[in-house]
Amino acid sequence: MIEHKNFIKLYETERKKIDKILSSALKKRKPASLYEPGLYILGSKGKRLRPLLVLLSAKAVGGNFNNAYNAAAAVEMLHNFTLVHDDIMDHADIRRGRLTLHKKYDNSTAILTGDSLLSVAYEYLLKDCDGNAKEVVSSFTKGLIEVCEGQSMDTEFELRKNVPLNEYILMIRKKTAAMAEMCCKVGALLGRGNNLLIKSLGSYGLNLGIAFQIQDDLLDIIAEEREFGKTIGGDLVEGKKTFPFLVALEKSGGEDKKKLLKVIERKGIRLNQVSGYKQLYQKLGVFDEAKKEIMFYSRKALDSLKPFNSSDSKIFRWLADSLIHRTK
Amino acid sequence: MIEHKNFIKLYETERKKIDKILSSALKKRKPASLYEPGLYILGSKGKRLRPLLVLLSAKAVGGNFNNAYNAAAAVEMLHNFTLVHDDIMDHADIRRGRLTLHKKYDNSTAILTGDSLLSVAYEYLLKDCDGNAKEVVSSFTKGLIEVCEGQSMDTEFELRKNVPLNEYILMIRKKTAAMAEMCCKVGALLGRGNNLLIKSLGSYGLNLGIAFQIQDDLLDIIAEEREFGKTIGGDLVEGKKTFPFLVALEKSGGEDKKKLLKVIERKGIRLNQVSGYKQLYQKLGVFDEAKKEIMFYSRKALDSLKPFNSSDSKIFRWLADSLIHRTK
Repeated sequence: MIEHKNFIKLYETERKKIDKILSSALKKRKPASLYEPGLYILGSKGKRLRPLLVLLSAKAVGGNFNNAYNAAAAVEMLHNFTLVHDDIMDHADIRRGRLTLHKKYDNSTAILTGDSLLSVAYEYLLKDCDGNAKEVVSSFTKGLIEVCEGQSMDTEFELRKNVPLNEYILMIRKKTAAMAEMCCKVGALLGRGNNLLIKSLGSYGLNLGIAFQIQDDLLDIIAEEREFGKTIGGDLVEGKKTFPFLVALEKSGGEDKKKLLKVIERKGIRLNQVSGYKQLYQKLGVFDEAKKEIMFYSRKALDSLKPFNSSDSKIFRWLADSLIHRTK
Repeated sequence: MIEHKNFIKLYETERKKIDKILSSALKKRKPASLYEPGLYILGSKGKRLRPLLVLLSAKAVGGNFNNAYNAAAAVEMLHNFTLVHDDIMDHADIRRGRLTLHKKYDNSTAILTGDSLLSVAYEYLLKDCDGNAKEVVSSFTKGLIEVCEGQSMDTEFELRKNVPLNEYILMIRKKTAAMAEMCCKVGALLGRGNNLLIKSLGSYGLNLGIAFQIQDDLLDIIAEEREFGKTIGGDLVEGKKTFPFLVALEKSGGEDKKKLLKVIERKGIRLNQVSGYKQLYQKLGVFDEAKKEIMFYSRKALDSLKPFNSSDSKIFRWLADSLIHRTK
């Protein structure tokens, strides 16, 4: 319990430091037409989970946070670059309670701001590189390539009638988990860890990322509205092929399957239909299946920590536990 | 004359090699929804000038072309990333005689394809790095940041009533010339040149880039339609604030100035008004002024070559000369 409080405190302290680096990163740059929108995006309150993974990984392998603050800011910039461009593609109006960038400004500004966030991300990443820049930048770039591939697969899935679960897992592995893997690897590289430790932390990040995304999909339908802060069943309303939906489709037959296929045909359902679909999910055992899968990947994440002694890996165990038991 | 033929032959040979690397770079990647559009763009017939600068620079400092083929492909990918995103922002339908990417596919595909071209560009750049990755990637990233800044300034200029010439030069320095500077620097770094040679080639690229862009602006109005392949006066028709236009605005008064300001107010002119504006430019001495400026920057580019012996710098002189005397 004391440990839990200490970890929360550490997280808050480091989050503030990251926020400070992010807000100063673009402040003195010109032209304002490019960097003010960038500041707007970096100023929104994110969890800053990815930077935390970078810092913790640098420390876990024997380095310290100071080896990796700029890289930590860089992965958050990279993350925001993906959010800005994804929001244009998804026609999203609201993100983290504020107008998305292309809604506040316009598409052109959002495209270019995204590009510039990515460019400054590389600049910041390089600040922390010394001697092993090739490995660090390679790892970062691999993460970026996979995010693009994952986003493309996600878009492609929208047009398809059905998506096998293994393809869905591959998509979230690329779109979400590869970035968490990269954060851990970059941190471990900057902390000058050996190959075994770098690989182990990468595996932790990757599997945690997959568990995190399935949990995200699950929360969309089982969370408590009061805590969640978003509409329950939003993914069904938008007709998204999430993990629970694809499990339901696989497990169903007859009338149930027809009902599920309607979500795809009609590109979503009405809000008042959500509870009916939730009951169907329950009947088909979708929630248990999703929870089993989350446990499977989080177990794999924790198993990856074996090369670390228990005091070094404790915070990673706490983080995995917090993410899996979150309610929003 | 024999030399001219040899240089042309070298250029053709290297261009083919670059084209081959580019077409194989995306071929085996998945998903096809992401990389087929990328191949479409890389398959269009560009001049491949930027890759040539990379290769020539690697050789000029004592290295050879083999040190830099992947980096040469990388700068072309970076260039194409900017074209794809710029074409969305500019609502351009045609590029190099083919449909632009967002016209052939859609905006989302074009945004994501641009992003992935940039990501693969970094991957290719890293292939040629060995030991000095930090310097090479920094230089590449600085070029990328400046391209974004230049594009933002260019967009900003569209909304302004007037733009002083020095601001215009700063814009093209960032939007066009910084990339040529970067190509020379990256090549020189990969060829393991000393600091003086790297800096000198960077200065050559930068000044050549500025001269090239002013020449581009000038050709739009003085080229022969038959050779040019594009509509003469297209920039005036679109109401663009080019170098000749801004010089005209500065040199004019009274009725002439009013006529020029109409181009801005009405966001362009009709095609049949082009010859009237061309006469006005002639009267105001715009063409002489632009030619003077082109000569000024190309002279600076050539002066930067002083640290090289004449046989090493010959091809750079030839290249500058070819670009300045081009007709399209």
